[in-house]
Amino acid sequence: MKAEPTFLSATAAVDAAAVAPLPNSRKVFVEGSRPDIRVPMREIRQSDTPAAFGAEPNPPVYVYDTSGPYTDPAARIDIRSGLECPRAPWIAERGDTEVLSGPSSAYGVERLHDAKLAELRFNLQRKPRRAREGRNVSQMHYARQGIITPEMEFIALRENQHRAEYLASLVEAGPTGKRMAALLGRQHPGMNFGASIPNEITPEFVRSEVARGRAVIPANINHPEVEPMIIGRNFLVKVNANIGNSAVTSSIGEEVEKMTWATRWGADTVMDLSTGKHIHETREWIIRNSPVPIGTVPIYQALEKVNGKAEDLTWEIYRDTLIEQAEQGVDYFTIHAGVLLRYVPMTANRMTGIVSRGGSIMAKWCLAHHKESFLYTHFEDICEIMKAYDVSFSLGDGLRPGSIYDANDEAQLAELRTLGELTKIAWKHDVQVMIEGPGHVPLHLIKENMDLQLEQCHEAPFYTLGPLTTDIAPGYDHITSGIGAATIGWYGTAMLCYVTPKEHLGLPDKADVKDGIITYKLAAHAADLAKGHPGAQIRDNALSKARFEFRWEDQFNLGLDPDKAREFHDETLPKESAKVAHFCSMCGPHFCSMKITQEVREYAAREGIADNAALQQGMEVKAVEFVKRGAELYHKQ
Amino acid sequence: MKAEPTFLSATAAVDAAAVAPLPNSRKVFVEGSRPDIRVPMREIRQSDTPAAFGAEPNPPVYVYDTSGPYTDPAARIDIRSGLECPRAPWIAERGDTEVLSGPSSAYGVERLHDAKLAELRFNLQRKPRRAREGRNVSQMHYARQGIITPEMEFIALRENQHRAEYLASLVEAGPTGKRMAALLGRQHPGMNFGASIPNEITPEFVRSEVARGRAVIPANINHPEVEPMIIGRNFLVKVNANIGNSAVTSSIGEEVEKMTWATRWGADTVMDLSTGKHIHETREWIIRNSPVPIGTVPIYQALEKVNGKAEDLTWEIYRDTLIEQAEQGVDYFTIHAGVLLRYVPMTANRMTGIVSRGGSIMAKWCLAHHKESFLYTHFEDICEIMKAYDVSFSLGDGLRPGSIYDANDEAQLAELRTLGELTKIAWKHDVQVMIEGPGHVPLHLIKENMDLQLEQCHEAPFYTLGPLTTDIAPGYDHITSGIGAATIGWYGTAMLCYVTPKEHLGLPDKADVKDGIITYKLAAHAADLAKGHPGAQIRDNALSKARFEFRWEDQFNLGLDPDKAREFHDETLPKESAKVAHFCSMCGPHFCSMKITQEVREYAAREGIADNAALQQGMEVKAVEFVKRGAELYHKQ
Repeated sequence: MKAEPTFLSATAAVDAAAVAPLPNSRKVFVEGSRPDIRVPMREIRQSDTPAAFGAEPNPPVYVYDTSGPYTDPAARIDIRSGLECPRAPWIAERGDTEVLSGPSSAYGVERLHDAKLAELRFNLQRKPRRAREGRNVSQMHYARQGIITPEMEFIALRENQHRAEYLASLVEAGPTGKRMAALLGRQHPGMNFGASIPNEITPEFVRSEVARGRAVIPANINHPEVEPMIIGRNFLVKVNANIGNSAVTSSIGEEVEKMTWATRWGADTVMDLSTGKHIHETREWIIRNSPVPIGTVPIYQALEKVNGKAEDLTWEIYRDTLIEQAEQGVDYFTIHAGVLLRYVPMTANRMTGIVSRGGSIMAKWCLAHHKESFLYTHFEDICEIMKAYDVSFSLGDGLRPGSIYDANDEAQLAELRTLGELTKIAWKHDVQVMIEGPGHVPLHLIKENMDLQLEQCHEAPFYTLGPLTTDIAPGYDHITSGIGAATIGWYGTAMLCYVTPKEHLGLPDKADVKDGIITYKLAAHAADLAKGHPGAQIRDNALSKARFEFRWEDQFNLGLDPDKAREFHDETLPKESAKVAHFCSMCGPHFCSMKITQEVREYAAREGIADNAALQQGMEVKAVEFVKRGAELYHKQ
Repeated sequence: MKAEPTFLSATAAVDAAAVAPLPNSRKVFVEGSRPDIRVPMREIRQSDTPAAFGAEPNPPVYVYDTSGPYTDPAARIDIRSGLECPRAPWIAERGDTEVLSGPSSAYGVERLHDAKLAELRFNLQRKPRRAREGRNVSQMHYARQGIITPEMEFIALRENQHRAEYLASLVEAGPTGKRMAALLGRQHPGMNFGASIPNEITPEFVRSEVARGRAVIPANINHPEVEPMIIGRNFLVKVNANIGNSAVTSSIGEEVEKMTWATRWGADTVMDLSTGKHIHETREWIIRNSPVPIGTVPIYQALEKVNGKAEDLTWEIYRDTLIEQAEQGVDYFTIHAGVLLRYVPMTANRMTGIVSRGGSIMAKWCLAHHKESFLYTHFEDICEIMKAYDVSFSLGDGLRPGSIYDANDEAQLAELRTLGELTKIAWKHDVQVMIEGPGHVPLHLIKENMDLQLEQCHEAPFYTLGPLTTDIAPGYDHITSGIGAATIGWYGTAMLCYVTPKEHLGLPDKADVKDGIITYKLAAHAADLAKGHPGAQIRDNALSKARFEFRWEDQFNLGLDPDKAREFHDETLPKESAKVAHFCSMCGPHFCSMKITQEVREYAAREGIADNAALQQGMEVKAVEFVKRGAELYHKQ
C-alpha cells in the first residue's frame, strides 16, 4: 500500500481560491430564538445607480449560502482539525444519545488499528454517538412528537433568507426604499402543480413537512459540523454534487478540495461516491470538513470488501458497512432496495441494460443466489440502524433508464412502485426517506415520472439525476440534463443531482464540478421561479436592474459566477473604464438599446406620460391605468 | 479609413479546422427527380460490435448536414470566388426574373464605385436579379399556385434524411439487419400540442405548408449558393446563429470564419448583425460563401447611414437599404414593424425598458416624430420589395422582455397582436413570414407565449431568442436560455435563435459560437424527440448502443461534438487502448455497471429467460409477454 505523506502537509490549508469571500460579499448571520442558532447568509453589496439613471442607492441582496465557514474571514480553517460543530450542543442536550467508546463496526475498528493507515487517518478525537437503547433520534421522530428542533428553526430562517425583514426595512427607509422594495419584491405568480408553498417558512411548517414525510433533513448525529438544510417540494429546490475517487484516478486531497469547491459554488449536499483505495479514510476527511450533508452509496464499499465479487456480498458485510459509515457521520445512504429479483429480467431487452452501479450489483447478486436482495429482505433491520444515527434513506433507482430508448419502461416503473412500499415501511419507523429518479427521459415523458413518484411514493421528496433529455451530446450532458432538471424541478422534484460535462466520458475535475453546479443552480432557480417560490425573483430583479443601469460590477457579483462573468466581459472590453461606461461591447458607444430606452423614458417623463406614482407603488393596477392613459394621449395625435 | 490588405491573402483559403470532414463521416448525396437536385447528408460510419457483445456490424447513421461544401473533400473551396450555385438553374428556368445591369439601390452603386473599397470588395461578377415587372417570385406564391419548386423537393428529401430507405435496406439485409432496424427505429410516441407532423415529408406537404404560411423557405433569388431549408412547426426544429462585427471589435475575415464555423456545427441559418464599419462588404463576403440562408436587421445599417441618429431615419433611406441588401441576397429581414407609437409608453415602467436594438431605434423615431413608424405605414411597400426578390419577413419583437420582471407584459403582447395583423397583410402579397419571440421568460410562462403566437399569428412559424428562464447566471446564458429553447421548441417553435455564453457580457468568439450552437442543437433535438418527430430517435439509439457496447469512437462520432467528447475522454484515460477497453474511468476495471448488465443478460440467456425472438422483432407486445414469462419463472422459485 502506498501511503500519501504529501497529502496532509500539502493541503492542511485549503486552496486559497476556495476560501476567499466572493466579490463584494460578506457572510452575515441571522440569529434564532437562542444564540447558538446562527444562520449564515451571503450579503451582496451593490453600488449606487449612476447619476444618468437617477443616482439612487441600491440595497444589498441576501442569498442562500452553502459555503460554510470557508468564506467567513472570521473562521479559522484547518482541515486537519475539521470544522466547528454548531449542532453538537443540540444533539447532546436532547439526552437520547450515548457516546460510544469507539467504532462499533468491525471494519471501523480494523481501520482504526491499522498502523499503515496512520498517515492517512483523520485524527478524530471525538467518539461516535448512537441512540440510547430503544430511542429514535431521527428528525422525523421528533417532528411526529411535535418537537421543533433547533435544526428545524435553523432551516426555517435559512429558507426565508431574511426576506420579510429585508423588504420591510426598505419600505421603512422612505419613498426610494419603498419603490425599491416594490421593484425588487415583484414576482410572477407561479404554477406549482399542487405544491403547498407558504409565503413565510415557519419552524412549525418545517416540522409538519418532516412529520408527514414531504421533506427530509439529512443530519446524522455524528455530523455535528453540518449547517442544517431541508429537501422537500415546498422549499427551495436543492442541488447535489457528486465527488469521489475511483481505482483509476484521484486522491483524498483532491476530493476534499472538490467538496469545498462544490459548496463554494452552491452544492446543497455532496455525495462521496469513492470506489478506489482508502474509501473509509477519504470519507472521514470529507465529513469532518463538510458544512453540508454528505451522502454515500454503502454498497460500493461493501463490494470493495469482497474484492468486487457481487455474489460474495452478504447482509453481515453490508450491515457492518452501514454502521461504519453511520458512525462516521454520513447523512444519507443511497440504498437500492427496490431492485427485486422479478424485475431483473425486465431489463434484458433494454438498449442499455442496468446503468446504476448499485442496481447492477444487486441484480447480479439476486441472479447469482436466485433470492430476493438482502436490502429488501433486511429492510426493517436497516431502518433500525438509520434511526439510531438519523441517517436518511435515499431509495436508489437501481433500474433507472440509461438511454432515451429505455425511458419510463416497465423495469423502471416497477421499481418505483416498490420504492413507494418501502417508503411506508421506513415511515413506520419514523425514518426519513427521499426517492431517487431518472436518468434519461425525453422532455415530454418527464411529467409522468414526477406524477407517478408523487402518487406512488406518497409525496416523499424526489431526488433526480438530470434527467438527460437526449443522448446525442456527450461532452454537454450537464446541459442535456440541465434542461430536464429545470423541468422536473418545476414539476416538483426537491433535489437535483448534478451532471458534469464529463458525464459518460471521464471523471470530473474542479472545472467540471463548477460547470455542473452552476448549471444545476440555475436550473434549480429556474424551477423556483416557475413554482413561484416566494422571493425567488429578488435576485433576478436586482441583477436586471444592475444590467439596465450599466452597473457591470453589480451584474457580475449578483450572478452565480462573478468570476466568469467578469472574465467574459474583460475579454472584449478589458479596460477598467469600460465597466462604468454606458455602453457595452455588443453594440458600441453609438448604438445601445438600453441607452435609447433611457432616452425614451426621459422623453416620456418630460411629456408627462410616465407616472412615477404608479412606479413607486409597484402595483399592476396602476400600471394598467398608466398604460391606458399613455395610449389615449397618443391616440389624440 | 484603414483598409485590411491582410484579409484576402490570409483567409483566401478557409481555416483548415473548419473544412475537414468530421471524424468517420463523409458527405453523401440523395438525388431527387432531376440530377441537379442533390441533397447532402452526413453519413457517420460505425465499427462492429465487439465480440463480447455479439460481434455484429453496425450500420452507418445519416444526419442532417448544414455544413455545405466545406466538409466535402471533392469541393474546391476558395472564398474569393464564393460557393457554387446549385439554385441558379432553378431560378433562371422559372423565367420570371430579369438580370439587372447593376445594383439598383443608390447605396449599392455608391459602394461599388468607391475606389477606396477595392481591396475589401468581394469580386462578384454576377449581376443582381429581380422579379420581372408584375411578377412575384416568392416560394409562397409558387406554392399557392400549386407549383412544387425544386427547392421544395430538395427540402422534402433533406427533412426525411433518407430514413425510409435506410430502415428498409437494413430489414432486407437479413435477421441482424432487421433486429438493428427495430432497435434503431424504435421511438417514443411524442406529444406535439397540435402540430401535424407526417411520417414522411413529401414535396407536396412542403408546398402545402408554405402555401398556408405554416412554414417559410428563406431563399432569395440572389442567394443561389443556398442549400434550401425550411422553417416550420411540422419540420425539424432549426437553429440560427448570430454573427456580426461591431464598431468595437471584429473584422470581415473573422465574420466569414464564424459563418463557416457555425454551419460546421449545425447552424441552419446565420444572421449577420454587423453594426460596425464595412457592413455592406462584410455581408457580401458572408452571403457569397454561405450554404445556409442569411438574415439581417436592415435598420442597423440604415441607422449607420444617418450616423446613428434614429430621428434622422427616413422611409427612403430604409427602402434603399432593403433593396441594397435584397440584391446582395439576404434571405430574411428582421423588421420591427410592430413597434407602434401607442405601445412605447407601455415600456416606461419596465425593469429593463426596450432591449431590442431595432425596437429601441423605432421607439425613439416614433417619439421624436410623434408619428407611427414608417415600417408600419409603409408595410405594403415593403411587401412589394420582398416579393420581387423572395426575401422572407422575420417580424421582429422590438418590445420583447429584457428581464424576467418584464416577461409577458402588455407591451410585449400588444406588439404580438400587431405582428399577427401584419402577417395577414404579408400573406395577402404571398410574402413569407415568421414571427420573432422572447427574450426572458420564466419556465411556466413560456407556454402562454407559444399559444398566443399560434393563435394571433395564424400559425406563422415562431422564431424565438431563448427564452432565458432566469437572469441570475451571466456567463451561462446559453444554458439559462437553452432550457427555455428546448421547452418552447417542444411547444411548437420552428427555429431557435442561439444565445452564447457571452450574452450580456461581450462579443462571442469562435469558441462561444460553437458552445452556443451545440447547446441549441441539443435543445432543438430534445424538442424534436418530445414532439415525436419521425426518426429523431435513431441517432440517440445508435449512440446509446455504442455507449453500452464500449464503442468509444462511435460514441464520440455520433455526438454533436466528436472533438470535445474525445478530448474529455482522453483527459482521464489518454491511452489509445482505453478506447477499446470494456470499462471506463468513472468506475474502473472491476466495477462497471454495463459490464455487470452484460453478465445479467448472458445469465438470463443461459437460463432461457431472454427471448431473442422478442428482441429481434422489436415489438413491445412481445417484450411484455417476455417480461411476464420472466417474472413467472422467478415467482416459481
